[in-house]
Amino acid sequence: MVNLFEYNVKTHHKQELINIDHYLNEALEKSQVEEGIMIVYCPHTTAGITINENADPDVKKDLNAALNDTFPNHEYFIHREGNSDGHMKSTVTGASETLIISEGRMVFGTWQSVYFAEFDGPRTRTVYVKIIGG
Amino acid sequence: MVNLFEYNVKTHHKQELINIDHYLNEALEKSQVEEGIMIVYCPHTTAGITINENADPDVKKDLNAALNDTFPNHEYFIHREGNSDGHMKSTVTGASETLIISEGRMVFGTWQSVYFAEFDGPRTRTVYVKIIGG
Amino acid sequence: MVNLFEYNVKTHHKQELINIDHYLNEALEKSQVEEGIMIVYCPHTTAGITINENADPDVKKDLNAALNDTFPNHEYFIHREGNSDGHMKSTVTGASETLIISEGRMVFGTWQSVYFAEFDGPRTRTVYVKIIGG
Repeated sequence: MVNLFEYNVKTHHKQELINIDHYLNEALEKSQVEEGIMIVYCPHTTAGITINENADPDVKKDLNAALNDTFPNHEYFIHREGNSDGHMKSTVTGASETLIISEGRMVFGTWQSVYFAEFDGPRTRTVYVKIIGG
Repeated sequence: MVNLFEYNVKTHHKQELINIDHYLNEALEKSQVEEGIMIVYCPHTTAGITINENADPDVKKDLNAALNDTFPNHEYFIHREGNSDGHMKSTVTGASETLIISEGRMVFGTWQSVYFAEFDGPRTRTVYVKIIGG
Repeated sequence: MVNLFEYNVKTHHKQELINIDHYLNEALEKSQVEEGIMIVYCPHTTAGITINENADPDVKKDLNAALNDTFPNHEYFIHREGNSDGHMKSTVTGASETLIISEGRMVFGTWQSVYFAEFDGPRTRTVYVKIIGG
């Protein structure tokens, strides 16, 4: 049974939090794993994976505002591509999240969703999903 | 053998770091896994899991002060629940930690413990512990 | 087959990002795992593991500058060892990263490498690498 999946995520803004739960559910169904874990992995260095609220869209707006405020594109940055703020946000957010699978479903909290966090878009990005039974 | 465990954590303050090592040790013992990994998962979007020092309680105080200082409840936040600072801290801290198990014990550093990080308490929270042998 | 590996990392500065890909590749080869996951774990509370760019060394310089700028050694810290900034950076960066293994190689992005992040050096540090097939 296949347990490694690759998805493309098209981003439309410089910074953006994109809900990718539908990809994770699709991968889980294809894997036919009932009990185990799922690793959601971002192979980019100016993006990340984070889990946060899916109910009120204002939370995403506040997160984006706070990320820009806390980790700005400092004038002292020397990296010529000019996206060192995105690299910093990537290190803070992290390249992956690990989820628990039980009874064929992800053990989410009521308000949790998984987001692809774009920090240097717009681009077409990749997300890997790996599922291990056990 | 059961390898998924659920624990309740009662928090008493708005922000609080609560050592949950005893839950992890109990889960590990029940699982009877000698070699493998453990995922500690927080199903909340205004809380997280972090690993830090267990010796000097002043470290917890300094971490709480720095978290509040670096990620304040900005006036520009629009989320009506008024806890966007907690959502931001949750994304920065992360929803889970993955530990290594060897010879029936967690491969901790000398000073490491696992903390449930409450960012919008007091509440009764949940922590999931999943153990995979291998 | 052995699937848990321990490596020493010698750091030379107070703060330093050290590429440890060669250790991960060595562990992967010894494990003979073709499909699975790898947990890279830091057992220290003033250090962490992060994934970021390996091409332009200026990115590391910018990350170090932004880490020091965003998470300074506040005057209000009370922990007597004087390294609470390192504890804070450790919680923000995280103690581990989980990688995906496919066809006997790590599923990295083109520009990704794994870094041991020293936040209170110089010291001789330890990194654990655990590999699970599946």
